[in-house]
Amino acid sequence: MAGKKFTEKHRITYYEGDQTGKATIPMLMNIMILASEDQSEALNVGSDVVDPTGLGWVVTQYVINVKRLPSIDEVVEVGTEAVNHNDYFCQRDFWISDENGEEIVRVTSIFVLMNRTTRKMSKLLPEVIGPYESEPVKRIVRLPKVASTDSEPIFDQKYAVRYFDIDANHHVNNARYFEWMLNTVDDQWLTEEFPVMINIRYHREVQPEQMVQSVVRSIESDDDSKRTLHQVLVNDEVYCEAEIEWQPRLV
Amino acid sequence: MAGKKFTEKHRITYYEGDQTGKATIPMLMNIMILASEDQSEALNVGSDVVDPTGLGWVVTQYVINVKRLPSIDEVVEVGTEAVNHNDYFCQRDFWISDENGEEIVRVTSIFVLMNRTTRKMSKLLPEVIGPYESEPVKRIVRLPKVASTDSEPIFDQKYAVRYFDIDANHHVNNARYFEWMLNTVDDQWLTEEFPVMINIRYHREVQPEQMVQSVVRSIESDDDSKRTLHQVLVNDEVYCEAEIEWQPRLV
Repeated sequence: MAGKKFTEKHRITYYEGDQTGKATIPMLMNIMILASEDQSEALNVGSDVVDPTGLGWVVTQYVINVKRLPSIDEVVEVGTEAVNHNDYFCQRDFWISDENGEEIVRVTSIFVLMNRTTRKMSKLLPEVIGPYESEPVKRIVRLPKVASTDSEPIFDQKYAVRYFDIDANHHVNNARYFEWMLNTVDDQWLTEEFPVMINIRYHREVQPEQMVQSVVRSIESDDDSKRTLHQVLVNDEVYCEAEIEWQPRLV
Repeated sequence: MAGKKFTEKHRITYYEGDQTGKATIPMLMNIMILASEDQSEALNVGSDVVDPTGLGWVVTQYVINVKRLPSIDEVVEVGTEAVNHNDYFCQRDFWISDENGEEIVRVTSIFVLMNRTTRKMSKLLPEVIGPYESEPVKRIVRLPKVASTDSEPIFDQKYAVRYFDIDANHHVNNARYFEWMLNTVDDQWLTEEFPVMINIRYHREVQPEQMVQSVVRSIESDDDSKRTLHQVLVNDEVYCEAEIEWQPRLV
């Protein structure tokens, strides 16, 4: 048993790619969220239905696994499914497949419904969750914790939240957190390596006009893997953290 | 007489819009450039043909007229045409029309071919310009100069060029200049007004890892129009400047 699947085609445009000729992680997150918004519209539980309840969907964690980043001009299939849910949490999966039907990106995420005024979590409303046919379960998947480390920061950068970071929901677009985090890694690294795994956890929402600090640390690992820990802070409080595992780009 | 016209449909996604629910200017520039790249591919003079000549297309000026900004989820038609050219300069027009066929954005621009190593302008090669069927003329259109003013800056902001500002051609994406410029205007202004006209002139190319300074001034006008002058500087040298005329958003 599982929820209704929704898929749509998407062509990666040049402005969704970077100097390696591949799609960027922030843009891949954008196109996957677009698929979930399009599913919600198709099921008649889009923002025009959810907004009047005073609630809104908020993601708390993504675990992203990347086999291969799609290339600029490649046409991919983007899919999503609300897999299951308990009273408060919903597991939503996303995937991207290439023209041969091979899955190249897989994301598992946790969504909650939040009161848009008090910013407190709400129980999932049957009329909002029902149409996805997500399976009701006692316990939803427990995603791995983001690793921790005591090592000294490698790099540290301040960013002012800009007008163009804010989306139509008046929030900082989720994808911007990825830009702040990835921008702390030097350009050569970003052109030679790619994130094969990202485990990102959102604790608090960055607000318009705030100043964020993006910090990166290296994580020592038992195996040969190359890992970094990223934190986005506001006034020294961690608003978002992510663990990234890197691998050399093949092409 | 004029060149071959090329059009394609484009749906404005939520990540191409801002908190007003409308497409952003930087994203509109991206989707228009995408149309010209798609035309070049369709005519077999895409980057795979131009790159081996050692040259590359570079825009020197855009004059952008906006009647109305398209909304998120709106499907628009994006068009482009290489109108005419002389030995060195090509006039390329762009337009965006809505589903009723009404033109809502019109852009006139000047493109040149530049040697990618020396960064010097080259004569337009017949094999590169020919397929567009642009009309050969003695004199191409003379676009208006960007206004000047001696007034004191209203606001001034430094930006580090980021990894995600660089596109697949290893240049700062043209659209990023618009973000640097528009970000100097305060958020309330940007939500209440929109640019009805932008005249932007590129003098030098900002390089990866440079630090730019974005300065905005108010322009006094004879009529009631509200105008700003924007400059992007590197080490106090003007790399790009733009004049923007503002009008209240209707919706």
